[in-house]
Amino acid sequence: MELEENEKIEDLQYKGLSIIQNKKWFCFGMDAILLSDFAKKIKPNSTVVDLGAGTGIISILLSKKTKAKEIICIEKQKEMVDLINKNIEINKLNQKLKVIKSDIINIEKEIKEKTIDAIVTNPPYKKQNTGLESENKQKHIAKVETTATLEDFIKISSKILKDNGELFMVHRPERLVDIISIMRKYKIEPKRIRFVYSHKNKEENAKLVLIEARKNAKAFLKVEKSLYVYEENGEYTEEINKIYNITKKSENKTNGE
Amino acid sequence: MELEENEKIEDLQYKGLSIIQNKKWFCFGMDAILLSDFAKKIKPNSTVVDLGAGTGIISILLSKKTKAKEIICIEKQKEMVDLINKNIEINKLNQKLKVIKSDIINIEKEIKEKTIDAIVTNPPYKKQNTGLESENKQKHIAKVETTATLEDFIKISSKILKDNGELFMVHRPERLVDIISIMRKYKIEPKRIRFVYSHKNKEENAKLVLIEARKNAKAFLKVEKSLYVYEENGEYTEEINKIYNITKKSENKTNGE
Repeated sequence: MELEENEKIEDLQYKGLSIIQNKKWFCFGMDAILLSDFAKKIKPNSTVVDLGAGTGIISILLSKKTKAKEIICIEKQKEMVDLINKNIEINKLNQKLKVIKSDIINIEKEIKEKTIDAIVTNPPYKKQNTGLESENKQKHIAKVETTATLEDFIKISSKILKDNGELFMVHRPERLVDIISIMRKYKIEPKRIRFVYSHKNKEENAKLVLIEARKNAKAFLKVEKSLYVYEENGEYTEEINKIYNITKKSENKTNGE
Repeated sequence: MELEENEKIEDLQYKGLSIIQNKKWFCFGMDAILLSDFAKKIKPNSTVVDLGAGTGIISILLSKKTKAKEIICIEKQKEMVDLINKNIEINKLNQKLKVIKSDIINIEKEIKEKTIDAIVTNPPYKKQNTGLESENKQKHIAKVETTATLEDFIKISSKILKDNGELFMVHRPERLVDIISIMRKYKIEPKRIRFVYSHKNKEENAKLVLIEARKNAKAFLKVEKSLYVYEENGEYTEEINKIYNITKKSENKTNGE
């Protein structure tokens, strides 16, 4: 596999997985890692959709963290679709992962109603007209709602999910009122929420929110214990280490085989 | 002041305040204490309403925690209204607190639209037909939505609040999706949320949620750091101690005057 200019390959330290990213574009962050961990309870044999897949990071991790049958990446940017295809190839995931080049809002042409068991999504966090337009195009599209809005992501999820199908989303707490109201509107009931904070024992607000919602489910929300990234001394917390560590152990095991 | 059978008087250890409760009825809990602390930022000279005031505990604490001009307790149960009146008397708060005996749903007869600066409320947590009917009547009414539903509490708050007026609520996280959706419906935008957990470092869900919402405000939610009640060794956390401690210091000061 030949890398293009600005591309870098990174060892995901999890079951031998790697990922190629373009340094100039939007690169995955901890939010993607945390979402794939939060969504690892996806049931065996599920058909999963990754809405706005970017580099494909969430799908690539889920391919090994779950026993999903098929994971379909939806991505509208040609360059990112090419990147996902490369990532599928280097990880030999052609049997399980595929990419469809499509804008979220046209997804109905590609995926039938009520056929999907689970959806994972890390949508753009910012509303239209709030991002810095000076950023490069790929970054801007990943961070700001350009064509599809938050409401589109949820509306479309509701259409393609089976009854009781699950939606896993990572987003910013600032948008939580929007998220919850829109989910309720489209009958995707939030069932489990977890907030992510940078530091323990600091006067700071939550930085991320992880949400599990279920189509046509009854109202009853669980707000799980908070997840902290850093200890007071600046090191990763035990839990963050564990999320990455499982990783390292698995990798060592693989290496040892 | 003569106490009735089953009544007990308790020192609130805060600026000399006391409270009379009836041991057989619903007695205030930590939720009321935490809400009055969460709402202490109510602005000077505010007119405040306490919707479903119970023993009056929140209003009594707020009378000293804020510089509110007037605090109006709304309570529908005759016995509780009598109790609040006793509590106003023993704390010499007649200048600042008053009680109106009214069901929430008839409050418009008592309070004009758009005249209130802030509302505090600790509504019944359970939906109709979910409480244990075997409990005594006063307890049942305090815990279960008998006449007024959560939607009534929010709808009425929206009516009587001024533009930008604030609603402070304590509730159970299980109902958060209901709360947020209904607040949005009545244009009371949640602006600040805090979750309360029993224990640090335990695999447990949040037990309470504190919400500050503002009428006709723009969408932007802050999820504050989590509040923990107990340390691992079973003692109160520093923050809970502080909420009660300020208390003790003030009491000592008062005693020393």
